[in-house]
Amino acid sequence: MLRTHNCGELRIEDINKEVTLCGWVQKVRDKGGMIWIDLRDRYGVTQLVFDESKTSQEILATVRKLGREYVIQSSGIVVERYAKNDKIPTGSIEIDVKNIDILNASKVPPFTIEDETDGGDELRMKYRYLDIRRNPVRKGLELRHRMLQHTRNYLDGQNFMEIETPFLIKSTPEGARDFIVPSRVNQGEFYALPQSPQTFKQLLMVSGIDRYFQIVKCFRDEDLRADRQPEFTQIDCEMSFITRDDILQTFEGLIKYLFKQALNYSLDKVERMSYDHAMQYYGNDKPDIRFDMLFVEMNDVAQGKGFKVFDDAELVVGINVEDCADYSRKQLDALTDFVRKPQIGAKGLVYVKYNEDGSFKSSVDKFFNQEDLKVWAEKMNAKPGDLLLLLSGEQNHTRNALSELRLKMGSNLGLRSKHEFKALWILDFPLLEWDEDSQRFHAMHHPFTSPTPEDMEKLTTDPGAVKANAYDLVINGVEIGGGSIRIHDKTLQQKMFDALGFTADEAKKQFGFLMDAFEFGAPPHGGIAFGFDRLCAMFGGSESIRDYIAFPKNNSGKDVMIDSPSTVSIDQLKELGISLND
Amino acid sequence: MLRTHNCGELRIEDINKEVTLCGWVQKVRDKGGMIWIDLRDRYGVTQLVFDESKTSQEILATVRKLGREYVIQSSGIVVERYAKNDKIPTGSIEIDVKNIDILNASKVPPFTIEDETDGGDELRMKYRYLDIRRNPVRKGLELRHRMLQHTRNYLDGQNFMEIETPFLIKSTPEGARDFIVPSRVNQGEFYALPQSPQTFKQLLMVSGIDRYFQIVKCFRDEDLRADRQPEFTQIDCEMSFITRDDILQTFEGLIKYLFKQALNYSLDKVERMSYDHAMQYYGNDKPDIRFDMLFVEMNDVAQGKGFKVFDDAELVVGINVEDCADYSRKQLDALTDFVRKPQIGAKGLVYVKYNEDGSFKSSVDKFFNQEDLKVWAEKMNAKPGDLLLLLSGEQNHTRNALSELRLKMGSNLGLRSKHEFKALWILDFPLLEWDEDSQRFHAMHHPFTSPTPEDMEKLTTDPGAVKANAYDLVINGVEIGGGSIRIHDKTLQQKMFDALGFTADEAKKQFGFLMDAFEFGAPPHGGIAFGFDRLCAMFGGSESIRDYIAFPKNNSGKDVMIDSPSTVSIDQLKELGISLND
Repeated sequence: MLRTHNCGELRIEDINKEVTLCGWVQKVRDKGGMIWIDLRDRYGVTQLVFDESKTSQEILATVRKLGREYVIQSSGIVVERYAKNDKIPTGSIEIDVKNIDILNASKVPPFTIEDETDGGDELRMKYRYLDIRRNPVRKGLELRHRMLQHTRNYLDGQNFMEIETPFLIKSTPEGARDFIVPSRVNQGEFYALPQSPQTFKQLLMVSGIDRYFQIVKCFRDEDLRADRQPEFTQIDCEMSFITRDDILQTFEGLIKYLFKQALNYSLDKVERMSYDHAMQYYGNDKPDIRFDMLFVEMNDVAQGKGFKVFDDAELVVGINVEDCADYSRKQLDALTDFVRKPQIGAKGLVYVKYNEDGSFKSSVDKFFNQEDLKVWAEKMNAKPGDLLLLLSGEQNHTRNALSELRLKMGSNLGLRSKHEFKALWILDFPLLEWDEDSQRFHAMHHPFTSPTPEDMEKLTTDPGAVKANAYDLVINGVEIGGGSIRIHDKTLQQKMFDALGFTADEAKKQFGFLMDAFEFGAPPHGGIAFGFDRLCAMFGGSESIRDYIAFPKNNSGKDVMIDSPSTVSIDQLKELGISLND
Repeated sequence: MLRTHNCGELRIEDINKEVTLCGWVQKVRDKGGMIWIDLRDRYGVTQLVFDESKTSQEILATVRKLGREYVIQSSGIVVERYAKNDKIPTGSIEIDVKNIDILNASKVPPFTIEDETDGGDELRMKYRYLDIRRNPVRKGLELRHRMLQHTRNYLDGQNFMEIETPFLIKSTPEGARDFIVPSRVNQGEFYALPQSPQTFKQLLMVSGIDRYFQIVKCFRDEDLRADRQPEFTQIDCEMSFITRDDILQTFEGLIKYLFKQALNYSLDKVERMSYDHAMQYYGNDKPDIRFDMLFVEMNDVAQGKGFKVFDDAELVVGINVEDCADYSRKQLDALTDFVRKPQIGAKGLVYVKYNEDGSFKSSVDKFFNQEDLKVWAEKMNAKPGDLLLLLSGEQNHTRNALSELRLKMGSNLGLRSKHEFKALWILDFPLLEWDEDSQRFHAMHHPFTSPTPEDMEKLTTDPGAVKANAYDLVINGVEIGGGSIRIHDKTLQQKMFDALGFTADEAKKQFGFLMDAFEFGAPPHGGIAFGFDRLCAMFGGSESIRDYIAFPKNNSGKDVMIDSPSTVSIDQLKELGISLND
C-alpha cells in the first residue's frame, strides 16, 4: 500500500504515530509561516500542516506547486490540533508533515468538488467521474452498496437462491419496447434485452428452485420522461408453495430489515389496503399515508341544490384541510390555479372556510346556505378553523385531481417529512381492464396473474369484476414494488385466455415455451419485483434516481460522458448484415 | 405456506409431528398392500407411505392417478421407518399419510429426472427447466449461489464498494466483437454491450472510489468455440494507492476464502512464477503445478551427434516420466500418435527407457550410445525405471507440444486429482508483442497496462524486452483471472503510445474520455477480473462452465429452450430505422 492509513481514520489516540496518507488536495491555506492542506479520500479529510520555519525548501517548493485535486502522498507524525474541528471525525489531529510527493497533477476541475457545487447538471454528467468525488454523490453510491449487501443477506437468510438469468433473450410479439441485438453468428436474427426476468423466474419455479432472487439490470426502450432510465435495476424474486400472505410477510420483512440496517429506522406495521379503498379515499393507487386528509364523497349532500357544476358531476368529493380556514384570497387563488394546470385539469375549486366563530364562508354561498354547509362540515368531520376543498366531475379524473391537491396540501402543511416512512400494501387490483380501441379486455399485470381465490368463478361470468391476486408495495406515496400470485393451473389459464379473447393457438404462439413448461408440473407460485434505483433514492431522501446511479443517462437516453449512443462504422454493420434506412 | 416443512428437513426427532409437505413425485412403489412415494423438492426427498388396509378409497384413488413429476401436497404423521435408508438425511423417517392433493399434473418428462439421466445434451437444453430439477444441475447452481455470496462478503469486508456500471455503453473502434444495440430514440445511433467494465472501473478510481467490485455480465460476439458463452460473468475489481503485491495479497485472500467457505479446503501458499520460467519449465503460461515433470532443455547434450532431427532443431527438450520404463511398444506408439495429432503437431517423439538394470533403450540408439544416454539421464535427474520423452523443433511450437504431452502423462499417472488445488500467480508477462502483419507492437493486455518498475527505462530503448506489471491467477492449469497495474502517469502513457506507434491524436480518438479523465488527478491504481463461470466449474469439479449457468447458450450462441436469437418483425426494425441486408 502507498499509505499506512486512509484520510478518515486517524484520531487523538493515534498521536505520535508515523503515518503515510494518500489522497486529493481539497484545499491549501497559506497563512504565512504556516501552510495547511486538507487531504481528501473516500474515507474522509485529514489536515496536513507545514511550519515553514521547520520545513525544507524542497518540500515547500512541492507544496507551492499543488493545485486543487492534485494527488499526493505525504508522510509525517500525527499531532494534536490546537484548534479542533468537531465537524469531522479526524478534527482533533493533524499531520506534521515530513515528506510529500506529487503522485499526479490535475487540471483545474470544471466545477468545485464541494458538497454544494457550482457545476450545472449537464456539466456534472459530462464529468461524472469528478462529480462522484463530491460527498453527496459518493454517499449515495455508498448507501446503494450497503443496500445491495443487506438485500442479499436477508434473502440468502430466507433460503432464496441467487440465480443469474440471461441478458440475451428473445423479443416477444408484444415487446415493442424491447432493445434488440443483432446476432453476427446467426445473421438476420436478433436477441432482445430483458424488460424483466419474468418468464425465467417462473421457469425456475417449474425447475423446483423454490425461492429465487436476483438484483438485476432490466431494459426498456421507452420514450423517456424525467427520471426514467433505459436501463434500471430490479430486486427480482419468486417463491413456490406459498399464498399471498406468505409473500407479503416475507417482503415486509425485507423492507423492515433494510430500513433497520441501512437507516436504523424502525418501520411501523405495513398496512394493507384494497385498490378500491385507495381510489375512493386517496384518489390514487399509491396513497401517501403519512397523513390522513381522506376523501369524503359529497354527492348526497352537495347535489340537487341548483349548483349545476355539482349537479352534472359524476362525483363531488372533498378533503378537510385542518386549521386552514385563515387562508387568504391569494392563497386560495393559487390553489385554484394549481388544480387548473393542464396536467391536473380540474375546471375549478370549491372551498368552504369553517370560521372560528362557527360561521361558513364558501365560494358557492350563492347555492348553499349556512345550514347546508354545516351538513358538509359534519360529513367531513370538520371543526371550526378548518378549510374544506371540493372538486367535481367525472369520477376518475376528479379523484386524480383531488389526489394531487391532497398531496400538495400535505406538503404545504409539512405533513410529508422525508425522515418519516409509511409503507402499505395495495391489494385486490382489477385483473382486467377494458380496452375501448380493441373492444376487449387486457391483463392489467400480465396474463399469468391469478384472480383472487374468491373471484375464480366470476372469470367466466363477470370478468370485469374479477380482482387480481396482485399486490403493490407503496412507501410515502411511491410505488416501490409489485407482483402477483401466478396462475399454475391449466384450466384456469385457459379461462384467463378466454377472457382475454385469445385462441389456444394465439396463446401458444405468444407464450410458447412457458406454456410448454407449465405442462410438466408447475408448482403454485408467485413473486415480486422492486425498483432498486427508486428504493435507494427513497432511502437517501432524494426525488431523483439519478443521484443513486454511478453513470446515469440523461432524459434523451444519452450518456454524455462517453457520448453514447453513437454511430458505428459501415463495416461493423455489414458484418452484422444490417444497414441504416435512408 | 402450503407446507409445514420441506422435503429435506424431517428427522427422527420429529416423530409424531403432524406435517404437510409439498413437492414432486419422484417415484411410486406399489408393493400390494403398501404404497410408497418418494416426494422431492429442492431440499431433499421424503418418503410417504400408505397402508392400503388403513387408507380411504378416495386417497388411494388419488394415489393411483399419480405419475412422475406430479406436484402434490400431502399431510400426515412422521413415523419411524422399519427399513432405514442411511443414504439420505431423511432416511430414518417416513410420513404416514392422512391426506393428499394433486396441485398439478405433469406430462411424462422427455428424460428421467435422476442424477444419471437418459437425456442427451440437446434435449436437456431444450427442457432446461426440467434438467435443473436434477440434483447435479441444482447443486451446481447452489454452489454458484454460495460463491456469489462469499465473494461479496469477502470484498465488502475489505472495503470494496459494489458499483453497477452501465450495460448500454459505446462501441470502441477496436470493438469488432462488440454486440451493438440500435437506439430507437436516437435513430442511426447504437449502444454497445460491454466486453468488460474496464474503462468504467478505471474512471471510478479517478472518482476516488478507492476500491470497487462488481459481479457482472459481460458480452463478446466471438466465433464460438466449445465452452465459450456470448454472455459470461466476471468478478471485476479495481484498487487505488496500491502496488502489485497488495493486489496479489488481497486476491489470494479472496481465493483462499472461497476455497475455505465453499469447499472447506485449505489452499496452500499461492506460488509466484515469472512468465519466462513458466514457458521454459512447463511450456505454458498456465502451468498445472499439481505435479512436477519439469522440462529439461537438452540442446547441449543432444546435439552434434549426427541425429539430424535434433541437430537442426532450435530446441531439444524433454520430461522425465518417473517409473514408466516398462511402457510397452503399444503404449509408446500411442504417445507418438498423440503428439502427432494436428492440434499438437509434433513430428515425432523420442523416448529413452532407463531400465531397472541400469541400461538404456531408446528410439535413437543408432545415434546415441549408452554413455550418451547416461548423460541425458543425469541431466534429467532420472533413476532406473524412469522413462524420458523428448521433442524437438522450433522453440515455441515444441514447448506447446511438450506441454500437452506433460499434461497427458500427468493425467495418465493420476497426478491431476480434481480434489487437489494448486494456485499460482504468473508474473512479468511481456508488455508488447510484435505483430508481423502491421509491423508494429501491440499491447498484450491493453495500452493502459504499466511496465514493471524495473523496466520503465527500456520502454524507449528496447520496448520488446519490457515486462508488464501484469498478473494471471492460474489454478490447476486453468487461467482463473488476470489483471494489471495501470499507467496513471501522463508521461509514461505517452511513451507507451509512442512504443505502440500511436500519434497523440489517434490515442485521443480511441481512448478519448478516459484520457480526459486522467488529466484530473488519476491515482495510482490497478485491478483484476476473474472468470466467474470458470471459477464455479473448477470448484464444482467440472470441465464445463455450462453446468454452472442456469440457462446457457449452445456452441452456436443459441438458446434452444426459448429459440433465441430469432427473427423480429419488419415493423420492429422499421421503428429502429434499420433493415436487413439482401
